[in-house]
Amino acid sequence: MAKYCVGIDIGGTTVKSGLFRTDGMLAAKWEIPTRTENNGVSILRDTAAAMRDWTSSLGIAWDSIEGIGVGIPAPVRKDGAVHIAANLGWRNKNARRELEELTCLPSFFINDANAAALGEMWQGAGRGRRDILMVTIGTGIGAGIVSNGRILEGAHGSAGELGHTHVRDNESEECGCGNCGCLEQYASATGMVRVARTLLEESLEPSLLRESGLTAKSIFECAAAGDILAEKAARISCRYLAAAIANAAVIIDPEICVIGGGVSKAGQILLDYIMEYYREISFVSVNKMEFASAELGNDAGIYGAARLLLDEAGYAAAEQNI
Amino acid sequence: MAKYCVGIDIGGTTVKSGLFRTDGMLAAKWEIPTRTENNGVSILRDTAAAMRDWTSSLGIAWDSIEGIGVGIPAPVRKDGAVHIAANLGWRNKNARRELEELTCLPSFFINDANAAALGEMWQGAGRGRRDILMVTIGTGIGAGIVSNGRILEGAHGSAGELGHTHVRDNESEECGCGNCGCLEQYASATGMVRVARTLLEESLEPSLLRESGLTAKSIFECAAAGDILAEKAARISCRYLAAAIANAAVIIDPEICVIGGGVSKAGQILLDYIMEYYREISFVSVNKMEFASAELGNDAGIYGAARLLLDEAGYAAAEQNI
Repeated sequence: MAKYCVGIDIGGTTVKSGLFRTDGMLAAKWEIPTRTENNGVSILRDTAAAMRDWTSSLGIAWDSIEGIGVGIPAPVRKDGAVHIAANLGWRNKNARRELEELTCLPSFFINDANAAALGEMWQGAGRGRRDILMVTIGTGIGAGIVSNGRILEGAHGSAGELGHTHVRDNESEECGCGNCGCLEQYASATGMVRVARTLLEESLEPSLLRESGLTAKSIFECAAAGDILAEKAARISCRYLAAAIANAAVIIDPEICVIGGGVSKAGQILLDYIMEYYREISFVSVNKMEFASAELGNDAGIYGAARLLLDEAGYAAAEQNI
Repeated sequence: MAKYCVGIDIGGTTVKSGLFRTDGMLAAKWEIPTRTENNGVSILRDTAAAMRDWTSSLGIAWDSIEGIGVGIPAPVRKDGAVHIAANLGWRNKNARRELEELTCLPSFFINDANAAALGEMWQGAGRGRRDILMVTIGTGIGAGIVSNGRILEGAHGSAGELGHTHVRDNESEECGCGNCGCLEQYASATGMVRVARTLLEESLEPSLLRESGLTAKSIFECAAAGDILAEKAARISCRYLAAAIANAAVIIDPEICVIGGGVSKAGQILLDYIMEYYREISFVSVNKMEFASAELGNDAGIYGAARLLLDEAGYAAAEQNI
C-alpha cells in the first residue's frame, strides 16, 4: 500500500494543503479559506474536515497517511505550542494537541518561513544542499534557515527574523518594532516604496515612477527600463538587503541564499543587485555563497511542512533529498 | 569496565588534553607544547604520543577509550578536512584520517570556538540549555553557536564569525579582513584599545588611562574605578558588541549568550554594559535573552571536544546534559 503524508500551510487568508507520497511526490492539492473569526477557533477543524473530504474523494485510506506537517505564520516549535499567532487570532494554544485529537494522526508544526526554506531545500532552488538561508521579501522580511538539513528553530521558534537586523545608523523614523534602522524599513515591499518616495521628493529629476503607481514591482520594472531614479532606489534597497544577508551569513555560513516572497517576482535584476553588493561587502569566508530565486512559489510551504513530517517520521528517503 | 574518551584542544602554543569518563567526569588533564615548525607535521604525532604516555601511566586500557574529540583554531567540519589552519601551519590536511591512523580510535574535529560553546553548554554557564550563543572576546572575536544541543557548523565549518559583523557605517580605517566597520575594529582586545586611544587623542580630559598601559583590562579597571573617559571607551566598545549580538540573536534565537575569552576577565562590568545596550536595541523576540560569563575558562575547549565525541558516539548520557 502506498504511504502518504499531508503538508499544510495555514495563512491569514487561505489554508493550503498538499497530499504527498512519502517518496516526495505531490499527489493532490486543495485550499480552503481561513476563518479567523472567534479567535480562529474553526481553523484546525475546517482544515481537518477538508482533509477528510479530499482524501476520501481521492480514495486514500486514512490509515495510509503517516502524519501531518503544518506551517503557521507565527513563531512555533515542533511541539505546536503557540503563544500568539496574530494573523490567525490564536493565543496560548497547543495547536498540535488539537490537530492530533481532530485527526488521530501525528502532527508537527513549523513557522511558515521555515517551512518555505525546508520546501525549497527539498524540491526547489536548494535541492541537494543542506545549509540554506532562505529570505522571503514581502510585506515584511523573514528568513528560514536550514542547517545541516534541519531547520534552525531557535530557543523560542523565532530564529530568522532577518527583517529586524540593524542595517543603518542615524535613522530617525521608527520601524514597526520600535527600533530605528531595521532592514524592513528599506527593503520590504513598503520599505522599498518608502526609499523611492524619499528619493522622488528630494529630487526634481524626471522619472517614470512619478507617473506610475509606486510599488516594489514598479520600482524594479522602471529600473530595468533604464529609469535612473528607479535604479537608484532599487540599488539602495538591495544594498541594505546585501548587508543584512552578509551579517547573517557570517553567523550561519550557508551554502546558498534563496530569495523568495512577492518582491522576488522582480526576478534577475533583484538578484543581480543584491549579489553585486554582497560580493563587495561580505566577509571572505562566505563571500562565494551562491544566490538563487525560489522555485516553488506559493507551494513552498506545503512542501516544507510535508518534509518536516517525513523527517520527524524518520523517512530515510526524505533524508536523501528525493 | 569504565569507559573513557579524550577531549583535545590544539592551540597555537599548547595542546591541552583531558581524559573524561563517558558520564562526563574529567579524570585527568595534560598539556604539551604545539610544535608548529615544518607545517606542524609533528602536532598530531606528539598529541597521540602524549595520550599513550598519560593513559598508560594512569593505568587506562587503550580499548576502554571510546574515541577522541579535537578542537582546532580553524574552520573544520567533523570529517577533519582542514583547508588552512594558519596558527598550526596546516594546509589541505585530513586531520581526522591522520589521527585515526595514529591512534586506531574514532576521531571527530571541531572549530575551537565551537568546542568552547559545546563545553560551556555541557558543563559550564550554559548547563541545561540547548540554544547558546557563546561569544569569545580576545585578540579577535569569534562565536560558537549551539542550536538544539548541536553545534551549528555551517556549510564550510565557519559559522560564528561574529567579529566580522558590520556594526558601523562611515568607518574609514580597514579591518584586517579588508572591510570597514567590522565588530573587531571596536571590540576585540586591540579594537578596545583603538577606541580608547582615539578618545584620549581627541580630548584633553584627565584620565587614569593616560598613566597606565592601555589594554582592554586597564580600560575596564579604570572604568570600574570611576574614570570617566575609560567608562566612555568601555561603553562604546560594549555598545558595538551589543549591536552585533543583537543582529546574531534575531537570526538564531538563542536562550543564553555566554561571554568568554581573555577580555571577559573584566567580569561583571563588561556584562553589565553589554546587557544595558542589548536590552535597549535588540528585537522584541530576543530581547529577554539571558547573559552569563563563561565558567570553564581554558578548559572549555577540552570539555567541548569530549562532548562532541560523546554525541557522535551516541552516548545517551551526553544527550541528557550530565
